[in-house]
Amino acid sequence: MGGDHGVNVTIPAALKCLKQNSELTLILVGDETVLKQRVGESALASYQDRLQIYHASQCVAMDESPAKALKNKKDSSMRVAIDLVRQGKADACVSAGNTGALMATARFVLKMIPGVDRPAIISTLPSLHGQTYVLDLGANVDCTAENLFQFAVMGVELVRSVTDIAQPKVGLLNIGEEDVKGNEQVKAAAKLLESSSLNYIGYVEGDSLTAGHVQVDLIVTDGFVGNVALKSIEGTAKFISHGLKTAFNQNWLTKLAGLVAYPVLKTFKYSIDPRRYNGASFLGLRGLVIKSHGGADVLAFKTAIQLAEVEVKHNVIQKISEQVEKHLALRESA
Amino acid sequence: MGGDHGVNVTIPAALKCLKQNSELTLILVGDETVLKQRVGESALASYQDRLQIYHASQCVAMDESPAKALKNKKDSSMRVAIDLVRQGKADACVSAGNTGALMATARFVLKMIPGVDRPAIISTLPSLHGQTYVLDLGANVDCTAENLFQFAVMGVELVRSVTDIAQPKVGLLNIGEEDVKGNEQVKAAAKLLESSSLNYIGYVEGDSLTAGHVQVDLIVTDGFVGNVALKSIEGTAKFISHGLKTAFNQNWLTKLAGLVAYPVLKTFKYSIDPRRYNGASFLGLRGLVIKSHGGADVLAFKTAIQLAEVEVKHNVIQKISEQVEKHLALRESA
Repeated sequence: MGGDHGVNVTIPAALKCLKQNSELTLILVGDETVLKQRVGESALASYQDRLQIYHASQCVAMDESPAKALKNKKDSSMRVAIDLVRQGKADACVSAGNTGALMATARFVLKMIPGVDRPAIISTLPSLHGQTYVLDLGANVDCTAENLFQFAVMGVELVRSVTDIAQPKVGLLNIGEEDVKGNEQVKAAAKLLESSSLNYIGYVEGDSLTAGHVQVDLIVTDGFVGNVALKSIEGTAKFISHGLKTAFNQNWLTKLAGLVAYPVLKTFKYSIDPRRYNGASFLGLRGLVIKSHGGADVLAFKTAIQLAEVEVKHNVIQKISEQVEKHLALRESA
Repeated sequence: MGGDHGVNVTIPAALKCLKQNSELTLILVGDETVLKQRVGESALASYQDRLQIYHASQCVAMDESPAKALKNKKDSSMRVAIDLVRQGKADACVSAGNTGALMATARFVLKMIPGVDRPAIISTLPSLHGQTYVLDLGANVDCTAENLFQFAVMGVELVRSVTDIAQPKVGLLNIGEEDVKGNEQVKAAAKLLESSSLNYIGYVEGDSLTAGHVQVDLIVTDGFVGNVALKSIEGTAKFISHGLKTAFNQNWLTKLAGLVAYPVLKTFKYSIDPRRYNGASFLGLRGLVIKSHGGADVLAFKTAIQLAEVEVKHNVIQKISEQVEKHLALRESA
């Protein structure tokens, strides 16, 4: 039910995923009448074995406070979907709804992986070197060194699970690469990472998220900095795209040039299309929750569902739990 | 002497500025022999009234620790140049050298404006709405609400002085626009700004730096977040520019398209050329210091010198001092 466009995006995306992956089963959670109507009789019939509808009488509004949603919306589509994950009736929950409420509900219902103090949000960005995973993107405004270290452990395991990178390179986001730079948390986190078994490459700066001079697979930072950096990058892409459009729309000559350049620009735009990078995973919880961008369209929401499929297939939560336990044990024995 | 390219950039840029502005006098500070040789006899003769050379026997290395530079390099070009500002022999100091050392030296020599606790670094970014001023870009990794408020007061006065914007719109960088978002410092800074006479518009997110949905003239944040955001933006621009080049270099057809599109792309690239936005001002000191990007080329370093010219002409330091005093008095009387 969530996101800026509700069922008009989530349902067409869900049906496309069902069509593409014959092993996939989806449970749509929300107002039964609305859902059934939007899915339509023919799709309901086609996918009767793999499409279930689960009624939830409430919805969390996009601007509702997480605390209020948690307290007053015990039958919201969000809550019911996460309950299904906890009960083992679903392997993952995908939502385009209110991020804060989704995180608060997920944390309350699913609980944390033992040894993890705070959940974090991770996603990928396209970069000169392929792609970069970044966390935390906004779950925690303040982080201790220990939090940052735990994010690194979880992030590395996610990257190892879903890519073919055996030893992901980990960078710590900072305002310079020299040892003296940074705040106390970052400096202390660097020490934890240096003495760990992770493939830690040191401090990286903001440009490394998309165009660093060295390859880095996973960048760790607190949720305030990560969120600002992510949105700065989104803003810049929007600004440049808008500027190019304006430049090619100047006069008939530039319009002609734009016409000639269009196929190339389109191919490039596709390669960095944010919809193809949609879907952020909540790490640290005892269950899989994927957050789609609220403004996602059908293609973007489909990407988020597919991300859930990949993470379920690779058993990400189980692997992360094992790694957290291993690193805890290592530290205790040290 | 500073920057990645030293006198090969700084001197040609200086000579260009002298040529363009017949009211400008420049003092080159550094190794006298090197400087005289690089300037050349004919330029020395042409600008004999407006070009002085001031010997300094030392140089601060780009990777030297600020504390060490301050202690051991009392005759560095950087230190001597800032001394000239303190002595009133120069109106401003422009350097492409080591940022940390420049800030530490400037703070030690020039002292703070009474009422300002911390200096901040401010610069501009091109945006959908024209341009956005941002501070702090890296002088302070941790900031209190009071620091952030002082940054806003100083930044507003700078914008008012050098643009025709009478009441600059001030935004506080945060990870959401709702009141509940953010860390404690940001929330407390919002309260200070709300009860001030500044034109405070509320929280803005990272995309507002270049492409916000509302216009904002000045964005205030701490130096860690500001620096990461700035570098994220620079990285994204580099990533997109590189991606476009690759896309147009794919095959002869795309190369042909690139040839046709080239003039348009070039015009657009010029409009966002970071060299045309080079130069960050240190605010809060009792003297004008402009930091150029270390990697600046001649055009970029020229922009930094011109920024100093503008700020001197508009008497920025004096105006900021008056505003800080006014806001302090207002608060005491409240």
